Amino acid sequence: MRRSFVIRSIGIALVVAGSIAWARQDSVSGKPIVSEETQACLECHKVTTPGIVEDWLRSRHSKVTPSVALQKPVLERRISNNAVPKGLLPIVVGCFECHGQNAANHKDNFEHFGHKINVVVSPDDCKTCHSDEARQFSDSKKAHALGNLRDNAVYHTLVGTIGGMKVVEGANFERRTASENTKHETCYACHGTSIEVKGTKTVATSIGDIEVPDLLHWPNQGVGRVNPDGSRGACTACHPRHSFSIEIARKPATCSQCHLEPDLPAWDVYKESKHGNIVMSTEHEQNWESVPWKVGKDFRAPSCATCHNSLIATPDGELVVQRSHDFGSRLWVRIFGLVYSHPQPMSGNTSIIKNADGLQLPVTFTGRQASGYLIDDDEQARRQTEMRTVCQTCHSTNWSNGHFAKLATTIAEADSMVLAATKLMLEIWNRKLADKTNPFDETIEQKWIKQWLFYANSVRYGSAMAGPDYASFKNGWWDLTRNLEEMRDYLGKNAGKKK
Amino acid sequence: MRRSFVIRSIGIALVVAGSIAWARQDSVSGKPIVSEETQACLECHKVTTPGIVEDWLRSRHSKVTPSVALQKPVLERRISNNAVPKGLLPIVVGCFECHGQNAANHKDNFEHFGHKINVVVSPDDCKTCHSDEARQFSDSKKAHALGNLRDNAVYHTLVGTIGGMKVVEGANFERRTASENTKHETCYACHGTSIEVKGTKTVATSIGDIEVPDLLHWPNQGVGRVNPDGSRGACTACHPRHSFSIEIARKPATCSQCHLEPDLPAWDVYKESKHGNIVMSTEHEQNWESVPWKVGKDFRAPSCATCHNSLIATPDGELVVQRSHDFGSRLWVRIFGLVYSHPQPMSGNTSIIKNADGLQLPVTFTGRQASGYLIDDDEQARRQTEMRTVCQTCHSTNWSNGHFAKLATTIAEADSMVLAATKLMLEIWNRKLADKTNPFDETIEQKWIKQWLFYANSVRYGSAMAGPDYASFKNGWWDLTRNLEEMRDYLGKNAGKKK
Amino acid sequence: MRRSFVIRSIGIALVVAGSIAWARQDSVSGKPIVSEETQACLECHKVTTPGIVEDWLRSRHSKVTPSVALQKPVLERRISNNAVPKGLLPIVVGCFECHGQNAANHKDNFEHFGHKINVVVSPDDCKTCHSDEARQFSDSKKAHALGNLRDNAVYHTLVGTIGGMKVVEGANFERRTASENTKHETCYACHGTSIEVKGTKTVATSIGDIEVPDLLHWPNQGVGRVNPDGSRGACTACHPRHSFSIEIARKPATCSQCHLEPDLPAWDVYKESKHGNIVMSTEHEQNWESVPWKVGKDFRAPSCATCHNSLIATPDGELVVQRSHDFGSRLWVRIFGLVYSHPQPMSGNTSIIKNADGLQLPVTFTGRQASGYLIDDDEQARRQTEMRTVCQTCHSTNWSNGHFAKLATTIAEADSMVLAATKLMLEIWNRKLADKTNPFDETIEQKWIKQWLFYANSVRYGSAMAGPDYASFKNGWWDLTRNLEEMRDYLGKNAGKKK
Repeated sequence: MRRSFVIRSIGIALVVAGSIAWARQDSVSGKPIVSEETQACLECHKVTTPGIVEDWLRSRHSKVTPSVALQKPVLERRISNNAVPKGLLPIVVGCFECHGQNAANHKDNFEHFGHKINVVVSPDDCKTCHSDEARQFSDSKKAHALGNLRDNAVYHTLVGTIGGMKVVEGANFERRTASENTKHETCYACHGTSIEVKGTKTVATSIGDIEVPDLLHWPNQGVGRVNPDGSRGACTACHPRHSFSIEIARKPATCSQCHLEPDLPAWDVYKESKHGNIVMSTEHEQNWESVPWKVGKDFRAPSCATCHNSLIATPDGELVVQRSHDFGSRLWVRIFGLVYSHPQPMSGNTSIIKNADGLQLPVTFTGRQASGYLIDDDEQARRQTEMRTVCQTCHSTNWSNGHFAKLATTIAEADSMVLAATKLMLEIWNRKLADKTNPFDETIEQKWIKQWLFYANSVRYGSAMAGPDYASFKNGWWDLTRNLEEMRDYLGKNAGKKK
Repeated sequence: MRRSFVIRSIGIALVVAGSIAWARQDSVSGKPIVSEETQACLECHKVTTPGIVEDWLRSRHSKVTPSVALQKPVLERRISNNAVPKGLLPIVVGCFECHGQNAANHKDNFEHFGHKINVVVSPDDCKTCHSDEARQFSDSKKAHALGNLRDNAVYHTLVGTIGGMKVVEGANFERRTASENTKHETCYACHGTSIEVKGTKTVATSIGDIEVPDLLHWPNQGVGRVNPDGSRGACTACHPRHSFSIEIARKPATCSQCHLEPDLPAWDVYKESKHGNIVMSTEHEQNWESVPWKVGKDFRAPSCATCHNSLIATPDGELVVQRSHDFGSRLWVRIFGLVYSHPQPMSGNTSIIKNADGLQLPVTFTGRQASGYLIDDDEQARRQTEMRTVCQTCHSTNWSNGHFAKLATTIAEADSMVLAATKLMLEIWNRKLADKTNPFDETIEQKWIKQWLFYANSVRYGSAMAGPDYASFKNGWWDLTRNLEEMRDYLGKNAGKKK
Repeated sequence: MRRSFVIRSIGIALVVAGSIAWARQDSVSGKPIVSEETQACLECHKVTTPGIVEDWLRSRHSKVTPSVALQKPVLERRISNNAVPKGLLPIVVGCFECHGQNAANHKDNFEHFGHKINVVVSPDDCKTCHSDEARQFSDSKKAHALGNLRDNAVYHTLVGTIGGMKVVEGANFERRTASENTKHETCYACHGTSIEVKGTKTVATSIGDIEVPDLLHWPNQGVGRVNPDGSRGACTACHPRHSFSIEIARKPATCSQCHLEPDLPAWDVYKESKHGNIVMSTEHEQNWESVPWKVGKDFRAPSCATCHNSLIATPDGELVVQRSHDFGSRLWVRIFGLVYSHPQPMSGNTSIIKNADGLQLPVTFTGRQASGYLIDDDEQARRQTEMRTVCQTCHSTNWSNGHFAKLATTIAEADSMVLAATKLMLEIWNRKLADKTNPFDETIEQKWIKQWLFYANSVRYGSAMAGPDYASFKNGWWDLTRNLEEMRDYLGKNAGKKK
């Protein structure tokens, strides 16, 4: 076992080994390209957490200085700023360049072997070089994922009900609300937690006791995490530490962590689509790193990122569509029903929405849209055109028109099947067969939830990405129908026999 | 954005670039090897749909002329014809060679910038070079997949019921039949649509308005698609456009698009089998392109295609089994129960079957086979021997005997569990607890459907391909038992307590 | 078709071909390195089962002699013995070296073309070279997987009930116990069968009739298989024949064959975790063969084997943790609930456990642990420290502390949700609403099973490996809650309306 820690002369070894990897990049400056601070980090962390050091050594961050990165032709640039702080220009992006940024804003900053270190690197830190990405992301639904759940009274009731402990004691059945731990392990694992600094604490490590910030709701890398510097989001949700690779973020396995059946079957449908089939059969032949990403040349069929947010170019390198880190920016309709599909919200912050029934939902239970908070027809048309531009790098106009027409009809039919279930539910509530106070805590209410949260979503996703099993037998029409029939039986009208 | 379209001198660039890739193949003829028509297609489509042009450039079609293909030793040939039309011999298989074939038969043919183009390429077009494949396929259940569903009164009732809109209005609950759109998005997405030509229409494209055929039920690439030239099937269901690669067709991800749980868990079981485990762990080392496909050398464990239809050779290139594009040709029993397992049907067209109860099903509800339409014992034995030949390239006779014996017993037991459910269902119908008029539209009937369509199928597939979770807890015996007990409770005999 | 078998001079071809592959390895000895016996095997099996011969040719066994293997530095050794029988030293590990070992102990040994061959190679044979692995494995729960299920009265009732045929005859509903065939196809497929030798039989093969042992419950490669030599286990469950590769065993697809939802969602959770995301996105770049396995260098994120049993080293090759083939040896708590989570059992043989209620379960139905059979706090702490050592090759102490704290809370909450369901179940039994004689055969009892076997397990696995969907909507808290509410409705207290 590797138990004891000896400060050996690993610094030297590092510099020697490092010079092989790093010197390639910055022959211009002649200056040391790993900062002294980062070198100090590496000396210890090469021993204490070697896995992430190796991962970083493999990353572009360890090999390319901002000054070199800024010289690339505009379509090849992986850095959106036109300028970065002078001090960062000639050095590679190492430990301290990220974990030492904006220390004053970080409540999680602490003194660590002579340096002021932030535990949590945030979008506000990344924007030192990647400002367009940070800005697009910060305005998106993803960055607001925690607040959109926690600050929405309807959703928060759902979260609390589903994850809440139930206690049986004799004849008593008590429903409690979800604990902070359970929220962290379930919804907030993807949506993000709010990381708070409680103070400091001492942890026993392999190199002895050290003092570190005492963080509440940590670890977490949910996409809408609220960080100790007040910023929202975790870039590492998709660009995992410490390679921060574009390749991983472009692969569907990344999106698959959160966008999953039964509620959000994006990955599941994709996997069963022709696009998914081709990508997974030819993954090894594709170029997942190239910027710009050239249709046909770098990839033969799209991954999630291709359609939703990557900068796409023709095989000759001519721009097709711009990159965006607002992942909804090419979407006109939100097929994730709440409880119906609806035009995409205007703001990434959806907890501000209030519908005609006074609920923070984009549509009322009976289908009336809160239009003032949703994008209008023109904006919908503009976004569909942008998405179509991507489709048409392979598909004819006629093909993509046909696809979108099918999708529109399917969305309408799925919404109608939600309306049918909701009408049954309203009747059940009206007849006091269930108690609407909490609309999510009784078994019949949970059937209604399944209708819109699982089955109607599956049908729409199955159509949108052409994975028909999710429109059919796998949480699709089969279940839309079966579940509705079960709700009807419950209502007791002619239960068990034909009308 | 790439908005405007300029006819630049891309033709020249293409010829130059192309000559590098193509000249390798046909130094014999000295003639231009891309037809003039195809060159015209490429000039525009390189700009309007560059993705598919690049895909084609990567394909064998773009690199090998039929004359070269015909010279290969017979086991290495990827073209089954002994002769092809003379005009096609010296040119590569480009856009026009496929989209211009048999124009007179194509109701979807249209005048397109001076050429007569078919929108939909069909098996009848592919058979210009691949006649054995087209013939085998055309006689198979796959080619008849649409008719087998649509023209079978029982199945079509199921399709219409499951996908049908339900409308709740006050106390009224109305069940409608599935819309054409929903059938297209669900069952027909895999089974295929019938593409009809309604006339022509104008579409606005990036190069201006163009006139194209107005196709009903398009786009679709279902395996049993009925094409505007009257032929059945879509080769692109498995050999996706425009690489038409054998590699993709041989990979399990291709089959996984349609052969999925809960009804057809072939892919799901495979993925959890030892075969799937080995293939997925060593996918990158295998040779997915080689013809003939050499056991042990090219692949270490079988994919779907290996067992079901590929031409397999020994490591030394000696024939083991012939290729077939009738994917049922090595199968003796049909483990997809309707409602029971049964010997494979004699004809790919199963809608002609009529059982003793007058239903278009291979077995009656109580288990009597429509033997006149099903292959006999000799043919079953012959097919099992052929499949066994594949198994025995790795497994001993004793091993494969043992495997088939287990399978036979499991099939019989699963059928018995369907019979038990059917007997309960018949009793329920007899007692008027449900209305048999439509045997699929009530909740108790839907439990019965699950017994044979989901659970018994899972158990049989789990046995056939040795993925035991699908025989156990995942739609397997657990659910066969649980679901049957629920049906029993429904019947009200001793519900909720022991007999 | 390859039907006839001709003894051609393939032996010569083999030696010639073989010498290219094999001679590299043993230039020292100068002696023939494939044994005469193995050469005889290969002469026929190259023709009769070429796939496995090719697989072996690709293996280390075919290329490295034990004498060479023993000379490696200790951390690089793939062979744990310090010595092997002299006769084996200079020859590669071929057919006969494995299938001819310990013939006297093998009831499945038979005369086969002049040689005494065992059909089934067992851990007792493998331990000729791999004794540490065999010993660790033999003491583990995996090696006891069959007995732990079959010899535990509670589990065996579950197995027999779930897989048992049900027969409906008129008003009669008969529940039978599972057939041997069904147990083999379901639970025992993973847990292993007991292979018994019934005598001999004649099988018709492509080379004529041959006499072979008549084996009961064969084929099977379940991890706890009882072999004809009396040993327990099947190394091939994870190192599949005949490459026996470390690469395949280290890949998650191998574990995925058995550790699957709904009961054991280890693979499913992993696939949706950040670890799984990174591994699957970068699988092709990782070195899956290297021994020792160097964190960061050989792999960027862990597979199942990394955390659970592999020998892990730093990037510089310094030992981090030792290898173990007792796959529970780094685990302190058993999150697979029976019916609650509990400290890992002291012995791999869990059928010896007897709890306070006299059941062979580690915990009573109301939550009292059978502590005498379970590891104590010190051993739990020791194991958690070992696991933490792996985590901390990448993660900070603080991070892993936080992760383990969350897990502990989640385990406790999931157990509480099982207790709530069990209290309802006990009340149901007390009121004679169900019959406890067989606690698994009624629909309400099956809801109770789902609570602990599916849903509570999912929540714990989802937490342990950070795949939150399995803690949420996919068999997680959603189902823990919904299922409990359904049990409550069943109990009839205020069914259908609020208390």
